[in-house]
Amino acid sequence: MAVAAGATETTQLDSASGFEGLTQLVSDDLKAVNQLILDRMESPVALIPQLAGHIIAAGGKRLRPVLTLAAAKLCGYGGRRHIRLAACVEFIHTATLLHDDVVDQSGLRRGLETANTVWGNKASVLVGDFLFSRSFQLMVEDGSLKVLEILSGTAAEIAEGEVQQLMTANDTGTDEATYLQVIRAKTAALFAAACEVGAVVADRPRAEEIALRDYGLNLGVAFQLVDDVLDYTADEGALGKAIGDDFRDGKVTLPVVLAFARGDEEERRFWRRCIEDQEQDDDDLDRALDLMERHKALADALERARAYARGAHLALEVFPDSPTKRALREIIDFSVERGF
Amino acid sequence: MAVAAGATETTQLDSASGFEGLTQLVSDDLKAVNQLILDRMESPVALIPQLAGHIIAAGGKRLRPVLTLAAAKLCGYGGRRHIRLAACVEFIHTATLLHDDVVDQSGLRRGLETANTVWGNKASVLVGDFLFSRSFQLMVEDGSLKVLEILSGTAAEIAEGEVQQLMTANDTGTDEATYLQVIRAKTAALFAAACEVGAVVADRPRAEEIALRDYGLNLGVAFQLVDDVLDYTADEGALGKAIGDDFRDGKVTLPVVLAFARGDEEERRFWRRCIEDQEQDDDDLDRALDLMERHKALADALERARAYARGAHLALEVFPDSPTKRALREIIDFSVERGF
Repeated sequence: MAVAAGATETTQLDSASGFEGLTQLVSDDLKAVNQLILDRMESPVALIPQLAGHIIAAGGKRLRPVLTLAAAKLCGYGGRRHIRLAACVEFIHTATLLHDDVVDQSGLRRGLETANTVWGNKASVLVGDFLFSRSFQLMVEDGSLKVLEILSGTAAEIAEGEVQQLMTANDTGTDEATYLQVIRAKTAALFAAACEVGAVVADRPRAEEIALRDYGLNLGVAFQLVDDVLDYTADEGALGKAIGDDFRDGKVTLPVVLAFARGDEEERRFWRRCIEDQEQDDDDLDRALDLMERHKALADALERARAYARGAHLALEVFPDSPTKRALREIIDFSVERGF
Repeated sequence: MAVAAGATETTQLDSASGFEGLTQLVSDDLKAVNQLILDRMESPVALIPQLAGHIIAAGGKRLRPVLTLAAAKLCGYGGRRHIRLAACVEFIHTATLLHDDVVDQSGLRRGLETANTVWGNKASVLVGDFLFSRSFQLMVEDGSLKVLEILSGTAAEIAEGEVQQLMTANDTGTDEATYLQVIRAKTAALFAAACEVGAVVADRPRAEEIALRDYGLNLGVAFQLVDDVLDYTADEGALGKAIGDDFRDGKVTLPVVLAFARGDEEERRFWRRCIEDQEQDDDDLDRALDLMERHKALADALERARAYARGAHLALEVFPDSPTKRALREIIDFSVERGF
């Protein structure tokens, strides 16, 4: 279920040591972003900063705004606009997380400590709306229609991806193309936009804007692919939650898509019972892992992630060597290698 | 509860005969707006147009976009930008309705036929996000930072108002000022913005923009005040739902605020039991109505609405007489008189 996915990603980033180099390079800017985030989530309505603070504080290492800052730095940008846009990007991400946490009645059986279980679905939705609106206000203050176009388009794409994910949940008929479309829209699109706007404020040639967008898109897809593999394979301590959450939630990620496609009829009945009918016994997760192993579903999902990682590296080739470029390359490798 | 409020308002507008004159005056433009709404709620993700269509089709007479069209007409605007902005306004309104319909577990005991009961909370939230993003895309296409500033600020204000409403729910300590703040933000702000952007596209002097914003704001407050009175007094057939929904939901609207403030200690215990503890017997609604009658709570709430109606009339005085102005005046009177 998406609740778990949102929470997981954050947790994994907290322990993302491979990500520290990049953060270090933009640390002064990031402090300014954090301050702006705090300033702009203020409201006379007390629940807003309270609830937003809960999720923003838990938000880990601010991967997306760091990407904006780093992209601007890579492009040699010397102004201040990237600070505000990095905060925009984080607000959009936070609003998405809050809305991701909304569960239907059936979801409440799990005792998740997400914002919605503390304050209720409705508060999560409305505070998400506030952050989303605030993000647009920040963009308008920046004043670039080009940036507004990129980020409003991205917001629509994320929502489309989330709805599509909802429609593929519990559907073992989901194919690889559909899965990729979902993770592109719900995860990679914001990585791409975060990078692209960094180039846009620096007023660089279109080729560099596209290069950074491609970098973010490929990185985002690789990142989500590995995340979905880790849900089946991670060391539970490092993952910060129990493995198999996606399986128990009936989420159809690439490991399931591949194992289902490569399974015989008896195996498909197993997947349908577990994923579609949501009827699971205690040892079904072990069976699922066995089948994934037998059909190389996890290994091949990681192989796909490696291919996207290569795409991300390639995209950076238009830029000359620099500490920022090296750090951007490091996080590609880290994003993929944490899967092994 | 806000679920009922969203649905109610729509239903009441459907039967709003006093509103037809204005709609008639802008009917060609409104057709174009409806077409644009249909075009722009399209998505390859089938659930999006399906769910959005459900709520947009039920959306009644499009009061807010009609206000945008009429404001532009009042200002003598001859272009096409108001079509797109009217669609923006309706998308924001629709997104708000969808998010308003999200209920917490406790709310599910009522069998409401809102989008969230048909497709689930999560789908309502995500499709709302899509429409909200789409609205910003339309604004960006329009290309006016001034319009973007007005509407992004309004969106943030609506979300703040909705959160504040959540915080005042079941709180008999809510005072009149807080109640007014809530309805200003959650209802009147979008009426105001809908009118203001009509003047902005016509490129009229600031005084006319402000006049139309004030008109919308006052109209919106009057409208919501009457809506909240009608929840206690309406003929059930005309209302399209049972009276007393707000009472049963523990919503603290002005009639409750006034009756509580004017009640003795025994009466306040009654209100606390019904509204805060949500412990209600079958005859408690009758008791509530008796108390409101005794303390003139409903009559005074309507008196407040009349005062705002006068404010709306006053705001229009900067404009010379015209059929559009007369129709804009008519809907003020209609909005208030339906309460009697």
